[in-house]
Amino acid sequence: MSERGKFISLEGGEGVGKSTQLAALADALRAQGIELVLTREPGGSDGAEKIRELLLTGDEDRWGAEAEALLFAAARADHVDKVIRPAILAGKWVLSDRFVDSSLAYQGGAGDLGIQAVRAINAFGIGEWFPDRTLVLALAEGGARARARDNEMSDRIGGRPANYHQKVDLAFRQIASEEPARLRIIDASGSPEEVTGRLLDAIADLLP
Amino acid sequence: MSERGKFISLEGGEGVGKSTQLAALADALRAQGIELVLTREPGGSDGAEKIRELLLTGDEDRWGAEAEALLFAAARADHVDKVIRPAILAGKWVLSDRFVDSSLAYQGGAGDLGIQAVRAINAFGIGEWFPDRTLVLALAEGGARARARDNEMSDRIGGRPANYHQKVDLAFRQIASEEPARLRIIDASGSPEEVTGRLLDAIADLLP
Repeated sequence: MSERGKFISLEGGEGVGKSTQLAALADALRAQGIELVLTREPGGSDGAEKIRELLLTGDEDRWGAEAEALLFAAARADHVDKVIRPAILAGKWVLSDRFVDSSLAYQGGAGDLGIQAVRAINAFGIGEWFPDRTLVLALAEGGARARARDNEMSDRIGGRPANYHQKVDLAFRQIASEEPARLRIIDASGSPEEVTGRLLDAIADLLP
Repeated sequence: MSERGKFISLEGGEGVGKSTQLAALADALRAQGIELVLTREPGGSDGAEKIRELLLTGDEDRWGAEAEALLFAAARADHVDKVIRPAILAGKWVLSDRFVDSSLAYQGGAGDLGIQAVRAINAFGIGEWFPDRTLVLALAEGGARARARDNEMSDRIGGRPANYHQKVDLAFRQIASEEPARLRIIDASGSPEEVTGRLLDAIADLLP
């Protein structure tokens, strides 16, 4: 197999059925005879897991926002170097549970770093290895629901602003408008089978 | 003390007397009544030391060039967050044995990443906290001497190109031409006292 494989990433907040859809999408692709590498972030390679340990240990304010974003970008560069690029160059497909857009939306959009700045450090790290297609699972009523949950939780989770999930949602929509060929917002409502069908429709042009 | 302190970094390859000059410069500044924090890279803060351990352990090809540069930039952001900025805001001076220009010269100029790209990820990490003055110790005959040493060593250190030290030297000169107000090349020849005198001359405008 000398033809390059394709690289798909799946994104989405809590309660949108991402795990279920990841498994269903993997099954559907394998049923078409595609050799698939399933991976995930944060982590996904030995070096990235070591960096993840650094990020998760110690006090909550151990890392500033900039250092944290650079560590995520370094981990992602290693994930591409050691896992994603070799697989794609060998003709396999890669399906990643979260990838660069989690950083863009959470640290860039909902945090204070800005989507463009976070994209720039990630582009330094992964070069051309952005996904061929990124599928973002989102509920139409997501904003309202997330807002209600945020209002309940905002005291408990300390400094996080009450409109955090709204900002994440808005950030994904902004990235989709900037990179419409790569990133697609997928309606996560309805039966699991309906949602899987929408995901497959959104990558139909990439299928063999 | 409400006035901000100054931030000085000292750079220079092997054999230029950097350790001697660091101590002499620190003594001279303290003799003027300056409260000085002496620090160094790589490392300099708890988080940066943890990242440094990650960089130093494992196989030599464990990290790709981009991941390595992002890890150095993350460590530097932490060094600024936890050590450098608090000291300067408290009115102290900071003298760092190596800082951002080591990354610019070694990974950016002598490596294949490019000075501008490495400067950009570091600017993301440290923001405005570039040194007020960076002093680069260099020997006038440095190119020739380093070249001779490189030719002897190039087999032993594997893939490193024979003109590596020349490239580092050239990179420092390029940064000096781009940022003449910040970075000064200092002649490291002559007696230690003569060299210390040149260093003090090069920061005379910053002294109280």
